[in-house]
Amino acid sequence: MQVYHLYSGGKDSSLSAWILTRLGYDVKLITVSFGLLDSWKYARDTAEKLGFEHQVLHLPGEILEKAAEMCIRDKHPNNAIQFIHEKALEEVAKIAPRVSDGTRRDDRVPFLDLSKARSLEDRFGVQYIRPLLGLGYKTVRELTERLFVMEIKESERLEKSDYEVELRHLLREMGVDPLEIFPRRHYQSRVAGWR
Amino acid sequence: MQVYHLYSGGKDSSLSAWILTRLGYDVKLITVSFGLLDSWKYARDTAEKLGFEHQVLHLPGEILEKAAEMCIRDKHPNNAIQFIHEKALEEVAKIAPRVSDGTRRDDRVPFLDLSKARSLEDRFGVQYIRPLLGLGYKTVRELTERLFVMEIKESERLEKSDYEVELRHLLREMGVDPLEIFPRRHYQSRVAGWR
Repeated sequence: MQVYHLYSGGKDSSLSAWILTRLGYDVKLITVSFGLLDSWKYARDTAEKLGFEHQVLHLPGEILEKAAEMCIRDKHPNNAIQFIHEKALEEVAKIAPRVSDGTRRDDRVPFLDLSKARSLEDRFGVQYIRPLLGLGYKTVRELTERLFVMEIKESERLEKSDYEVELRHLLREMGVDPLEIFPRRHYQSRVAGWR
Repeated sequence: MQVYHLYSGGKDSSLSAWILTRLGYDVKLITVSFGLLDSWKYARDTAEKLGFEHQVLHLPGEILEKAAEMCIRDKHPNNAIQFIHEKALEEVAKIAPRVSDGTRRDDRVPFLDLSKARSLEDRFGVQYIRPLLGLGYKTVRELTERLFVMEIKESERLEKSDYEVELRHLLREMGVDPLEIFPRRHYQSRVAGWR
């Protein structure tokens, strides 16, 4: 039972990957790249530390450009992040029988509602699996603390592989300050290995 | 990490229980009874076959009576089943640090929406865990087929332990034909053991 799991190297996507293996799935981690930066390397690094197979999925730069325009129009990144995530799921669904991500019950973005989730499954003939959807933040925190050594750094200095990194970079290239778009977070966490 | 899991002996609640054990939880299965019938015995029987600890939770008959009145008023069981399930979760939440059930992404009833799920966690200081919430019907089917031997019988003859059994019984005692309330199902399934 092979599943392709969208992976950023963060705690949610790492916890989901662990759950999938516990349920008997053969898990391949997939990190999206638009070819602008090599930020996917941080996810690769964490994947290797955790012992997972990892692959980079290259998506067309036009998707990132459209997302940047959405950010500028909205002065907020939510629709842009949602847009990228849906495109990423669709691309993975073209090549895998089962696709998965680390979205949680308490997440607002990215998040596929019931009709979008069913539409993804129906259009591509895949299973869409979200191991964390039925878990609240306390449950996620308890499990991640048991499983992983976490690294907490100031946001600016943390090496991450999520969509935000290349999106911020493109906005800067377009002359837009990402701090006017993205909410400020002082600290962010990243999985450094198994406990 | 002890979790009390609402259990009917059906495939969804059995699959959820298995997932919880795979995630490292110490799982106690809980079957609700209103003391009208001993239909909880079928869940006990399946729990024993699967090797789980099992306990009957006795709920006050007034809850079932109120649910029967809802059925008669609505000419449909959905609100009544939802009402019983919420009461059952609340009772379990009083005695357990973590409560769980087998509700799925594609379920309509019983189902706690996001605000109800958070409210349950906040009011009782518990974690509410739904292992199947992020799985579609194809994923649930694939996993149950791998794990369990299923018994399929005509609805009328299947020994079950869900809320519906005692609710139908009470309706009959009140002179109401359950067939006017519950949608007809020809076949139902029950877990008979590990594959």
